[in-house]
Amino acid sequence: MHFFSDNVASVHPRVWAALHAADVPDFGYDGDSLSRALDEAFSTLFGRPCVALWAATGTAANCLALAAMVPPHGAVVCHREAHIEVDEGGAPGFYLHGAKLILAEGDGALLSPETISAVLAPIRRDVHQVQPHAISITQASEYGCAYRPADVAAIGALARQRGLGLHMDGARFANAVAFLGCTPGAVTVDAGVDAMTFGFVKNGGMSAEAMVFFDPALADVVRYRRKRAGHLQSKGRYLAAQILALLDRDLWLENARMANSAAQELARACAGRLMHPVEANELFVLLSDAEKTALRSVGFDFYDWPAPEGAAGAARLVTAWNSDPAHVTALARAITAL
Amino acid sequence: MHFFSDNVASVHPRVWAALHAADVPDFGYDGDSLSRALDEAFSTLFGRPCVALWAATGTAANCLALAAMVPPHGAVVCHREAHIEVDEGGAPGFYLHGAKLILAEGDGALLSPETISAVLAPIRRDVHQVQPHAISITQASEYGCAYRPADVAAIGALARQRGLGLHMDGARFANAVAFLGCTPGAVTVDAGVDAMTFGFVKNGGMSAEAMVFFDPALADVVRYRRKRAGHLQSKGRYLAAQILALLDRDLWLENARMANSAAQELARACAGRLMHPVEANELFVLLSDAEKTALRSVGFDFYDWPAPEGAAGAARLVTAWNSDPAHVTALARAITAL
Amino acid sequence: MHFFSDNVASVHPRVWAALHAADVPDFGYDGDSLSRALDEAFSTLFGRPCVALWAATGTAANCLALAAMVPPHGAVVCHREAHIEVDEGGAPGFYLHGAKLILAEGDGALLSPETISAVLAPIRRDVHQVQPHAISITQASEYGCAYRPADVAAIGALARQRGLGLHMDGARFANAVAFLGCTPGAVTVDAGVDAMTFGFVKNGGMSAEAMVFFDPALADVVRYRRKRAGHLQSKGRYLAAQILALLDRDLWLENARMANSAAQELARACAGRLMHPVEANELFVLLSDAEKTALRSVGFDFYDWPAPEGAAGAARLVTAWNSDPAHVTALARAITAL
Amino acid sequence: MHFFSDNVASVHPRVWAALHAADVPDFGYDGDSLSRALDEAFSTLFGRPCVALWAATGTAANCLALAAMVPPHGAVVCHREAHIEVDEGGAPGFYLHGAKLILAEGDGALLSPETISAVLAPIRRDVHQVQPHAISITQASEYGCAYRPADVAAIGALARQRGLGLHMDGARFANAVAFLGCTPGAVTVDAGVDAMTFGFVKNGGMSAEAMVFFDPALADVVRYRRKRAGHLQSKGRYLAAQILALLDRDLWLENARMANSAAQELARACAGRLMHPVEANELFVLLSDAEKTALRSVGFDFYDWPAPEGAAGAARLVTAWNSDPAHVTALARAITAL
Repeated sequence: MHFFSDNVASVHPRVWAALHAADVPDFGYDGDSLSRALDEAFSTLFGRPCVALWAATGTAANCLALAAMVPPHGAVVCHREAHIEVDEGGAPGFYLHGAKLILAEGDGALLSPETISAVLAPIRRDVHQVQPHAISITQASEYGCAYRPADVAAIGALARQRGLGLHMDGARFANAVAFLGCTPGAVTVDAGVDAMTFGFVKNGGMSAEAMVFFDPALADVVRYRRKRAGHLQSKGRYLAAQILALLDRDLWLENARMANSAAQELARACAGRLMHPVEANELFVLLSDAEKTALRSVGFDFYDWPAPEGAAGAARLVTAWNSDPAHVTALARAITAL
Repeated sequence: MHFFSDNVASVHPRVWAALHAADVPDFGYDGDSLSRALDEAFSTLFGRPCVALWAATGTAANCLALAAMVPPHGAVVCHREAHIEVDEGGAPGFYLHGAKLILAEGDGALLSPETISAVLAPIRRDVHQVQPHAISITQASEYGCAYRPADVAAIGALARQRGLGLHMDGARFANAVAFLGCTPGAVTVDAGVDAMTFGFVKNGGMSAEAMVFFDPALADVVRYRRKRAGHLQSKGRYLAAQILALLDRDLWLENARMANSAAQELARACAGRLMHPVEANELFVLLSDAEKTALRSVGFDFYDWPAPEGAAGAARLVTAWNSDPAHVTALARAITAL
Repeated sequence: MHFFSDNVASVHPRVWAALHAADVPDFGYDGDSLSRALDEAFSTLFGRPCVALWAATGTAANCLALAAMVPPHGAVVCHREAHIEVDEGGAPGFYLHGAKLILAEGDGALLSPETISAVLAPIRRDVHQVQPHAISITQASEYGCAYRPADVAAIGALARQRGLGLHMDGARFANAVAFLGCTPGAVTVDAGVDAMTFGFVKNGGMSAEAMVFFDPALADVVRYRRKRAGHLQSKGRYLAAQILALLDRDLWLENARMANSAAQELARACAGRLMHPVEANELFVLLSDAEKTALRSVGFDFYDWPAPEGAAGAARLVTAWNSDPAHVTALARAITAL
Repeated sequence: MHFFSDNVASVHPRVWAALHAADVPDFGYDGDSLSRALDEAFSTLFGRPCVALWAATGTAANCLALAAMVPPHGAVVCHREAHIEVDEGGAPGFYLHGAKLILAEGDGALLSPETISAVLAPIRRDVHQVQPHAISITQASEYGCAYRPADVAAIGALARQRGLGLHMDGARFANAVAFLGCTPGAVTVDAGVDAMTFGFVKNGGMSAEAMVFFDPALADVVRYRRKRAGHLQSKGRYLAAQILALLDRDLWLENARMANSAAQELARACAGRLMHPVEANELFVLLSDAEKTALRSVGFDFYDWPAPEGAAGAARLVTAWNSDPAHVTALARAITAL
């Protein structure tokens, strides 16, 4: 009964079906009919014309989009605990050719105009200091918290005012939208986002994420950069097929709701133990070593998490689109019984 | 009846079966049991201990290996028509942080100690000129020609003598081995190759190539660089599964033989028209525009190729593991009848 | 009467003399007799064999040395307020091809084994997190504080134990040595420093800093990287001449003593106002806006500095080798009289 | 009596005078009054508003300008024997973050619309091939030949038509203008050049070249890139002083005329031996080994040059602004007497 991460969950049956349906020759790279259908599918979803390109990983998708926004001598403002800063092996340094990440604060790994402004303020407008060119936010955040549309819009307004691009790492975008109950556009393009990663791998896919560009000029650059990064797969139809299957009849949203629902069941059992509000499919839970040992001894697997000051221990629990309801209920009961 | 490229061919049924078998949760990235089985599988195949890592594309696989051999201020010697020079969108410049490609000559896109030495000779050993650190050869070559074991060994000896690494782009390695009838080791590690890309995508796979390192120190660097390049997929088991399925009971070799056999049938029909010997699954054929039009009008699809001087036109024909024998025979007859 | 910065001070007469003496043709780049004399001059100074190369700026000198120690996928530990982090326009990102700076704490911009260990501890040894390869310390620090030989040795021991290189940014190394009264070697090579920038521009030079390598393998890389960075000037003899003139009869030390002595005179006047101990030629002084206005109104020029929490204001005062004693005394009196 | 290279010649007395005049404190970096005077000085010279920035070397100046024109995934068309390709230690790969150089042909190392078009033609407009973004020409060329204004204008027209930037490496621009007898603007900005390096080091300077931007947006980028490359010297006034001294009363042109005149005297003696027309201050001369030995035995020093096919040997002779007329005449006579 594992609650390690959604990033190893199985592939959804409808994705498998789409993969098999794609198993006929077509043009290579992204010239196939499925890859060419992405723009329309996402434009419909977001209610605005946009350009969508696939990539195999969120790391690549995030960095390719940021590299189109930020010159090598520039910088990106992101949260101190953003995935691009902490867990991508220095990929932004590689893709952005040495551009900097400027680290800002915020509860729940959420930025705000205030915390962003706090790091922008001391930067002198001279050549000795690296100048910001973009802001990157993660939706849902690294602590499973969701920006509301107004939150994104406030950051988008700041970005516009400062001449900065706005990027969204949406590895768990589906979970955030499922929680918010808003349209995908309300919390992105309508709020000033220029480009985003729309995650599918954690939500029923196998190996495909989407980069969605609300500014087509960014996509024009990324097409070249994607090839240059070795991310233009020759059999691209197998990536597009996954994405289209998950967009079809809002399977992405249905999957996210399943994961979120499981997370909420656990959250209720963790009342008093939660380090952050549960607004997606991740829980950060205060659990002592003894408690963790007890849970593991009866078959529950999950990762340790650094304990906040004064706490005896902590753990991260992640649910997925296919978390077994029986396992979830069992874990909820086990935690309640601690 | 298309003969465009093997890089869009369908996925082999045994690969599909392996993908489905992998559809159970396991550890993420390359911590799963399938990814961890690669070293042994390739060590058995090559008869030497080696380290194997997957990547989604040959572009990434080639460049990651080269980046472990060559510092940013160095250079790689490759053929003027090497894929890394001509068709990878500048990926070596990206992955090698601006290192140069030094372009050498050779019939059939094959290098030799003589042509390599010819470009090394004028390089002064001073800081004003970029110094070579590795040689990259393509097996089978971009013109479908195969290096014999002695050919590779001669280049390997030169590399050793000059202190250069030796890399092999084996996008169509299977086709070369099928043609040569040698062991995989005879034409690689036994001949001085330090690292290679072992291609599977063109040979029945979906989205997985292998980097094989005969020097484990190179793999230690590449593990970091692969993550940094966004090529460490979280569900790595789906890549490893493809590779293991194709290695199992030498399916890779069987597939390559099918493609090569189809190519030989076409080659017999093209006697007198061949620009290069057919030693893999690609044919470069002299065909006038009228002849190409005639073939296309009856349903044969293929790419044009630049005509050599004095020729009226040319085309590239590529066969695949699943080329329909009826289509192949029909094309052979049509060419014969021209 | 300006106390802005030592980096705009005039050139020492003995440096001028050396420049004129160098105004005869010699071999280009660093093949001239003066450039070739640097190794011996520094080996004598440090009491150990070392290799010395010139560069026009400290930014280039620091980054070239670090780039020889750290691969593009690695990181450098430095102080949060280190010059390479704050004031070099992102040069480390450029020269190190996107490697990261890991920011550690410490009073007076001085690192310690404890503060370094604090940032190293949470770094997992996996490919998702950027691994450290070097530590960089600044002597004297960005706040004019000096590492004692034992301080550097303790950091050197940590570096050795963790397999990290140790780099010293010695833009004001002369001032630190003048303050410490130790040999140059005691606080560098004897304490585990692998490579350093030995600053001359702020100390009577015009346009030459020295990179000193106690590990000659680093210099071998830097020779190529320096050319590649456009820092191999063709008339290198004019750079070497400056350095040799300042080394001759310890002019570097004499100049630093003059600057330090002026700083001490000011420090005595600033008792109770100093934000950091004065151990080189920089003073960070609590001064209210009204006090600063008063000083400026009678002809003293200096930069504002961000006030610490709770303070009414602050300023930075910098003395130089040629600070006019009358100006120094006048400023000391003016501050005392506030 | 050396004819090795103009890049080691002494510094002109008027440059020395200017350096001494600059030996008073001023603002740092390029905030001093001399650096701030460069825009006007060059705008007057070129008859058009332009922005001028100093750099210590031509390598840095060329690469900084090109990096502002070409994204990392792009390419620069240059001559196969261009200095940026052959002799800058891979600096373009570093500064342009891995962008490619596309090598074109042309007698005398001169490009033409025809030879440029020949390399542009086969580049497919797809992401698999690196797309050109700029053309770089060298004036005078690496073989001492000068583009006429109409030659540059023809290339400029091609650049405009193809949407490419046009860069000029003017390491010996002064010699070209002295030969052509045209205005500096006629062969640059009036002919479509966007940015250039105006060389001074080989022409009486010590350590300063100028980057001149006819498009101010390029300069805005280069200001940041120059700092990031460690080329923003703190005592910039000593670089600006050199440039202004050489611009003053057309000293740059006077010096170039001296060098050219010496070259012409040698050229007359080399009639029948010249590999290229002598249009600047470099001569490429057919000389057998015996002849070279004879010349060297009587005190003439110069570099060997690779002999063209069928020739018994070759040498390069370079004159400078201060070539001793007696030495020049002696060498001319010695060659005549061979």
